[in-house]
Amino acid sequence: MLTSALDAEKIESKQEERTANVHRLDSLNLLIFTTLLVVVVLTIWVFKRRNFRYIHETCLALIYGFIIGAILRHTSTTNTKSSVLKMNDTTFPKNPVPNWVSFEDQNMSAIYLYAFQGPYQKDTVHLEEQKAMFNSEIFFNIILPPIIFHAGYSMKRKNFFRNLGAILMFALVGTTIACLSTGIMVYGSVRAFSSLRSFFSFTDSLYFGAIISATDPVTVLAIFSDLHVDVDLYAIIFGESILNDAVCIVLANSIEKYVAGAILDQFDRALMLKSLGNFFVVFLGSFGIGSGMGCLTALMTKFTYIRDFPLLETTLFVLMSYSTFLASEAAGLTGIVAVLFCGIFQAHYTYNNLSTESKQRTRDLFELFNFLAENFIFIYIGITLFTFPSQKWDIRFIILSIMAIALARTLCIVLLSFILNLARKNPISWQWQMMLIFSGLRGAFAFALAIRNVSTHARSLMYTTTSVIVIITVIFNGTLVAPVMKLLKIRTNVREEAEPTPSIHRYRMMENNNNNRDRRTSDEVALLSNDEIDDDTTITIDARHDSSKYSKDERKQESKTWLLKKWSHFDKIFMKPLLTHSSPPLTATLPVCLLPITKLLTTKEQRTLHRNDNFSPNITSSIISSDDSILNNHQGVPTLELIDIDNVDSYSQSNTLINTDKNGDVTARFTASSSSSSSAAQIL
Amino acid sequence: MLTSALDAEKIESKQEERTANVHRLDSLNLLIFTTLLVVVVLTIWVFKRRNFRYIHETCLALIYGFIIGAILRHTSTTNTKSSVLKMNDTTFPKNPVPNWVSFEDQNMSAIYLYAFQGPYQKDTVHLEEQKAMFNSEIFFNIILPPIIFHAGYSMKRKNFFRNLGAILMFALVGTTIACLSTGIMVYGSVRAFSSLRSFFSFTDSLYFGAIISATDPVTVLAIFSDLHVDVDLYAIIFGESILNDAVCIVLANSIEKYVAGAILDQFDRALMLKSLGNFFVVFLGSFGIGSGMGCLTALMTKFTYIRDFPLLETTLFVLMSYSTFLASEAAGLTGIVAVLFCGIFQAHYTYNNLSTESKQRTRDLFELFNFLAENFIFIYIGITLFTFPSQKWDIRFIILSIMAIALARTLCIVLLSFILNLARKNPISWQWQMMLIFSGLRGAFAFALAIRNVSTHARSLMYTTTSVIVIITVIFNGTLVAPVMKLLKIRTNVREEAEPTPSIHRYRMMENNNNNRDRRTSDEVALLSNDEIDDDTTITIDARHDSSKYSKDERKQESKTWLLKKWSHFDKIFMKPLLTHSSPPLTATLPVCLLPITKLLTTKEQRTLHRNDNFSPNITSSIISSDDSILNNHQGVPTLELIDIDNVDSYSQSNTLINTDKNGDVTARFTASSSSSSSAAQIL
Repeated sequence: MLTSALDAEKIESKQEERTANVHRLDSLNLLIFTTLLVVVVLTIWVFKRRNFRYIHETCLALIYGFIIGAILRHTSTTNTKSSVLKMNDTTFPKNPVPNWVSFEDQNMSAIYLYAFQGPYQKDTVHLEEQKAMFNSEIFFNIILPPIIFHAGYSMKRKNFFRNLGAILMFALVGTTIACLSTGIMVYGSVRAFSSLRSFFSFTDSLYFGAIISATDPVTVLAIFSDLHVDVDLYAIIFGESILNDAVCIVLANSIEKYVAGAILDQFDRALMLKSLGNFFVVFLGSFGIGSGMGCLTALMTKFTYIRDFPLLETTLFVLMSYSTFLASEAAGLTGIVAVLFCGIFQAHYTYNNLSTESKQRTRDLFELFNFLAENFIFIYIGITLFTFPSQKWDIRFIILSIMAIALARTLCIVLLSFILNLARKNPISWQWQMMLIFSGLRGAFAFALAIRNVSTHARSLMYTTTSVIVIITVIFNGTLVAPVMKLLKIRTNVREEAEPTPSIHRYRMMENNNNNRDRRTSDEVALLSNDEIDDDTTITIDARHDSSKYSKDERKQESKTWLLKKWSHFDKIFMKPLLTHSSPPLTATLPVCLLPITKLLTTKEQRTLHRNDNFSPNITSSIISSDDSILNNHQGVPTLELIDIDNVDSYSQSNTLINTDKNGDVTARFTASSSSSSSAAQIL
Repeated sequence: MLTSALDAEKIESKQEERTANVHRLDSLNLLIFTTLLVVVVLTIWVFKRRNFRYIHETCLALIYGFIIGAILRHTSTTNTKSSVLKMNDTTFPKNPVPNWVSFEDQNMSAIYLYAFQGPYQKDTVHLEEQKAMFNSEIFFNIILPPIIFHAGYSMKRKNFFRNLGAILMFALVGTTIACLSTGIMVYGSVRAFSSLRSFFSFTDSLYFGAIISATDPVTVLAIFSDLHVDVDLYAIIFGESILNDAVCIVLANSIEKYVAGAILDQFDRALMLKSLGNFFVVFLGSFGIGSGMGCLTALMTKFTYIRDFPLLETTLFVLMSYSTFLASEAAGLTGIVAVLFCGIFQAHYTYNNLSTESKQRTRDLFELFNFLAENFIFIYIGITLFTFPSQKWDIRFIILSIMAIALARTLCIVLLSFILNLARKNPISWQWQMMLIFSGLRGAFAFALAIRNVSTHARSLMYTTTSVIVIITVIFNGTLVAPVMKLLKIRTNVREEAEPTPSIHRYRMMENNNNNRDRRTSDEVALLSNDEIDDDTTITIDARHDSSKYSKDERKQESKTWLLKKWSHFDKIFMKPLLTHSSPPLTATLPVCLLPITKLLTTKEQRTLHRNDNFSPNITSSIISSDDSILNNHQGVPTLELIDIDNVDSYSQSNTLINTDKNGDVTARFTASSSSSSSAAQIL
């Protein structure tokens, strides 16, 4: 009895010790990342102060990670040599492979439990180094969703939808072409090397094509945003790279499913069709969940008046957005696509229902998450290049792959631009095409797809190659984007059009103004000279922007496609009135026979607003309704002059619309009030 | 060669499948939690709308978790029966237990790797249920730090420091007494049951005493805050419960270390002294890291002007706070203590250096994190009661433990209150003592300590018992706090004194005012009647508070201890001028011989402010310096009348100080300006 208690104590303290060790190691690892993030933040600050724009923050994070990884690699003398019990396979059942192995200890009346970690290739893995510093589950469940959601939430939807045709073409068709052509090229060249040929099958090549075709939206776009590049080019590159990721993950999954189905290295047409079907089901399903959850959140925030409690409101918003991702993943679809469209819908509908405080909070929150997650990933990519155990270097394969992806990207951009230019009013110039090719750098997403599975030779090779390609393209293309743009004479310093949404850039600018104003009162002008010059230029651009308004609106009208017009109309008469507190309510936009239902779906605010619109059709009331977010952006008095500029904008815009629109679609309900057209102009 | 490729493909797709399954399960689990959180948020909203205050949100979360846990328990038919390979222990080396077990497969040239999961008692564990839904690592590294940091960051420091004597007495001495007496009582009663006696040693009893003595700051305090209970009582209960947790974790670690040292169940005086020494080293070390990192952040934000970029500033703030936790854990100290004091220092110093936007952002962010983390934990406690595999029920033990903790708490509160009352000017009345006893409910922290290690019989029993005690006390005590308070005639509806810090409650109130004002413009009064009545009452209390100012200040002066006065002085002449932009700079407060150094540490703002103070000693300039945060709280124009009230407060306060202070300590540098005394009054 006493010995049993003693044994128990022994087990207990051993377990305690083990837990403590694991915990300390985890803390230390996290501390390394946190410290690196602090260093990145400080470096960015120094760069911003010195107006040094050539190296982007993600590039910085990558380089720091790289350095620390190299140091860790060469200093870590694995003192705590972990003990491995090697068993022969005579007793090992292969079908199915057991999830647990347990050793019963008769004396200590305990069970020692071992969990399955996965199969490893004999010559790639060094068991001693197998410290799982980070697993892909955390990456996919925690780090990635906020980045993608933020992209959707802060997206300039107006420009995005205006170029939807080109974006979908590049993202859907282009990525598929890139995936296939990269796969074929890689497979073709792999045949030449006997050392690779043995384990690199055609499906492996295709899979590699899928993961390496995911271009990165982070780095280039941050630079584009800094340079104020032409909005249409910006929209195309942004839209392509963001949808691209979604397409690649679905492609990769389809190929995996195909492989799982057809273990043999032969073509099977039925299976391939099934994979293709799977592709569309997954894509549309994810879109459905994403937009559905977005609409649900909008309905919740519209009808519950939860906005009286901003904390609860923000929490609800965050939770609903995150559960979109989870629901989609749990249903076997892709959370990335779902969360992207959820972000777009949240920005388009829910955002308008939020309280002033929650608008601010959600924007700030996702901006912060995005920043942290982005830099974390790039630090991680840098560190793992040296420290990850399942590396498999093959310099020929890396060179081949780089050539293949460059060729594939050139091919599909040139080909698709040619097709698009047949229909586009403002064709994609060769400079833009060059820029599209050049900005196709690989980033976090390709890396994440590659690290998910490194169980075989082929996969380890893919992982190492992807890491190297990510690092090369981020450093090389990321740094050279600005000079190349100058070389191609692509115009920069273009101000985006006003957008009644969580446009972070605009908000930041105003924040700076506020800060500077505070500063001037405390005689701190000297230290801030750089920033002030910056601000002044943006403000003057903003003012000039007003005069070039006409031509832009015309161009906008022209490029609106039929589908887009239909959707815009539907959005105005049904979606917006249903999901937000916007001005012409459902009672006014839908047929009278539906009145009992539409009355139920109309809030007091809407009725009041609508009544005001009808009785006194003046500009101010419409500004309260549609420019709500812009007004709220200002947070008080200091930026009054910006409000004025916006008002002029939306006013002239609405006039232009009435003048140029001959289609009748948009003017369907113009009897309501002349000012309601300004809210229509704000829709896209 | 072909077969090898085929094998590789097989491994690959099997691993793929496994990853996908794990991922889907993870997503589903997280989705359950997220959905429950959404339901909790919506229920809270309904309760707030209906002004239903009797059930607190944590209690709600617990009950929901409980229900879902029960449903999951009875519906989940473990379809995917995980396969376990049972090995005999003949080949198993016990010293050391290997970390990995590998099976080499000759045909497939692969290694199947298994990782050590821990020893389990034969009869408690059901391997099939061993889905690690959540591990304590995540809890300790991710969920807990924001809660504790938030507690420190939003703490009412003035009241806290005023009652520091009582708080430290209850937290340090009281908790140790409670731990020992609970342990002894439990051990004594366990002796009576032969079934328990065999495996429940004295050190187990002590360990149980340590984990079950951690009282919960969350539930009771939220209720106290809603009821506006007397500030001193509030401060004592808050301070005790928050430091309590820290003491308990250190105690538990010390006992563990002791156990690890003395495997035999015998007393060893040297080891015990060592454990005691360990206790103080850990406590002071953690305090040092926490306050050090807080000061470092203050210095960084003071001298870098990173506040021109609010996003970077907020990120830096968050990262530094989090790395405090990690650094402390990595050093083998307790991150909880470190992060608590880091929070206090950040609020006291760094907060004053932040930009208006970052002040807002950090407050919002940690409020949200805290809310999510809190509710997540309580949902988790509820769910695991039914679904966690290592449960060991013993109803006698549970009843015994409840009696023991009730007795132990009564003992130490009554005893220590008696001792404290010998020295206190305003003694702790018996009503307060009753309230202190009654509000000692157990929560997230006790649960977290218990779930860390369930490797033995004794630990499993502790875990189950702790879960049950947490659930009972949260539901029972949490719900009855308000009625008991009424019964004891403890005065409620007392407004706290103005505090120049991130006092979230105050801020929320103003936010409500803002909202209501916005609302009134859109004729939405009818729906909000409840809230408005609430707000009006608080505002009138705020106004009354002004008239009762004198007596309060006097009381405050009296209760200031010698140590506190010394610290307050040091804070005013050295810490504040060094770490923030506050008004009398180091050049004025430190001896002239240090001028070269102090000049370097003084910012332009400080020099300007100081010059203004000297040349025109008017009230307004001092308000800008010391009441900076209050001004910033207001975010513009709408709450001007509140600013006025605060100004009157600080003015009358400063006068009182000058009149009543005869000690000479605080008046040391009054030559600087008469108004600087108002900032001295704000320090604590």
